[in-house]
Amino acid sequence: MARVLTGIQSSGRPHLGNLLGAIMPAIQLTENEGQESLLFIADLHSFTTIKDPAIRKENTKSIAAAWLACGLDTSKSIFYRQSKIPEVCELTWFLNCVTPYPMLANAHSFKDKAGRLSDVNAGLFDYPVLMAADIIMYDAEMVPVGKDQRQHVEMTRDIAKAFNHQFGEIFVIPEAKIDNQVMTIPGIDGQKMSKSYGNIIDVFLPEKKLKKNVMSIVTDSTPMEEPKNPDTCNVFNIFKTLANKDQISEMRSNYEGGNYGYGHAKTALFELMLDHFSEERKRFDHFMKNESVIEQHLQEGEEKARTIARDVMKRVKTTIGF
Amino acid sequence: MARVLTGIQSSGRPHLGNLLGAIMPAIQLTENEGQESLLFIADLHSFTTIKDPAIRKENTKSIAAAWLACGLDTSKSIFYRQSKIPEVCELTWFLNCVTPYPMLANAHSFKDKAGRLSDVNAGLFDYPVLMAADIIMYDAEMVPVGKDQRQHVEMTRDIAKAFNHQFGEIFVIPEAKIDNQVMTIPGIDGQKMSKSYGNIIDVFLPEKKLKKNVMSIVTDSTPMEEPKNPDTCNVFNIFKTLANKDQISEMRSNYEGGNYGYGHAKTALFELMLDHFSEERKRFDHFMKNESVIEQHLQEGEEKARTIARDVMKRVKTTIGF
Repeated sequence: MARVLTGIQSSGRPHLGNLLGAIMPAIQLTENEGQESLLFIADLHSFTTIKDPAIRKENTKSIAAAWLACGLDTSKSIFYRQSKIPEVCELTWFLNCVTPYPMLANAHSFKDKAGRLSDVNAGLFDYPVLMAADIIMYDAEMVPVGKDQRQHVEMTRDIAKAFNHQFGEIFVIPEAKIDNQVMTIPGIDGQKMSKSYGNIIDVFLPEKKLKKNVMSIVTDSTPMEEPKNPDTCNVFNIFKTLANKDQISEMRSNYEGGNYGYGHAKTALFELMLDHFSEERKRFDHFMKNESVIEQHLQEGEEKARTIARDVMKRVKTTIGF
Repeated sequence: MARVLTGIQSSGRPHLGNLLGAIMPAIQLTENEGQESLLFIADLHSFTTIKDPAIRKENTKSIAAAWLACGLDTSKSIFYRQSKIPEVCELTWFLNCVTPYPMLANAHSFKDKAGRLSDVNAGLFDYPVLMAADIIMYDAEMVPVGKDQRQHVEMTRDIAKAFNHQFGEIFVIPEAKIDNQVMTIPGIDGQKMSKSYGNIIDVFLPEKKLKKNVMSIVTDSTPMEEPKNPDTCNVFNIFKTLANKDQISEMRSNYEGGNYGYGHAKTALFELMLDHFSEERKRFDHFMKNESVIEQHLQEGEEKARTIARDVMKRVKTTIGF
């Protein structure tokens, strides 16, 4: 059975872009027959940049709630917090010792972060090795990632090969699965939706706040009466990602017919959003109010993950003489 | 009760220089009232340079045998293998995230190793953080080290302070105890005795081989009949480290009187060595033949060490929100 491993950044509550571009497709992948899915919240990685315990706890909670709300079935997949599998840190040390220093020093993401952040810590530097341990630890064969993560999977492959070269065939060499079809969701300013651009739509907000969020989508100043070009409008472009064909062509006619203002379009988008995510929003609120249910789902996954991790670590330690 | 922590490099069987300069004094320190001693074999650190499992296992075994043979009382101290306390790798990750990258990149020992070794791996780079975790993990207050390790303890202090600064007073800030009185033992060529100089006397060798080892001490070509200067002679200088006052002044007269060859001096040294380490040599052989006894001593220590480590990790994780 092919093992597929997905790491989930734990930088906060997922937004519309995450939902459509990452979470929904990943959950769909877990439904595939003949495939075992591991999905983990990378809270150890997040410690490189997020030090506040309350923020990190809240992030982890709301991420788990979002995934569960979107339909992740934890009886069919392994859903866990990275920090609950301490073996991964042990494996990181062993992998460090076969990882060339220059490979890490020259990694794109480290150079990028070292240039941007004021706190350039050794965790940021060692980030790819922890990621390699995350993957190798579970004999993962396939790692679905965005293009920006391709180098990290390449490094994982190099590290695993270096280990195998020295000690025999201990590790499975994982493959990156880069989905080029991945949906890019525009943010409220038209750029790619991203927390770092401050342009997100937070689907799980209470109704009033969500409405305010949708109303803040940036539009031009064409008067209500005049016909409008839907294709250059952020509201329409976001609407398209959720609507069906009929809804899309109806809104297109409205734009082109005139006497249809951006306020109308935003209200339509807001209502579509409430309708489209009605179940997810209800479930999200339920999970957020019942932390023990989230905890139960995660602990179930952590038990399963740890069983695999312990087996692999036993194999590693026996081979390398520990 | 003050906790004193000593790391033991696991690069092979200790030689005369290690015994007199490090092991014997460290064991003496464990006898101090009001002090709890932890002593660990740094086998995780050794993985940065020693990859061969058989060599590392043999090293660990013979180091443990040597310490036990020299009289380490494991009921009064905590003697363990670093790798058996996996919490130390977990703590290393957390510490990595508060350790400035440039601090590690500029560390003397890393620069030195990066210049000398062909395999410059990320483990060598992260070496000081693992060492910091080793120390901090046990709330150690005092760390007896040689001058070459002073910077590592300084870095440990900085890392612990950085953590405390961010999260409150979690960690004890350790003090280095640099012993300036430490005995430097000359090797068979007169330089400081060191495995890396290839000039050691291996006290635990079987008798015949030990004799050969002693006989290989470098001397000048002064003929047997002529008086000799003991103070410039390697044999005499090594003899001095083991002999009592009377023995030393007797050998001095022999040197100065003439008709006393280097062969005689070497034989006297060899016999003194057999006598001086008679118990230690017997015990060493006993332990080497009874690996399970070594194992028992170490496991006893590992249980005690792990209990402390788990407590400290609980404290850390609660504070930082994991």
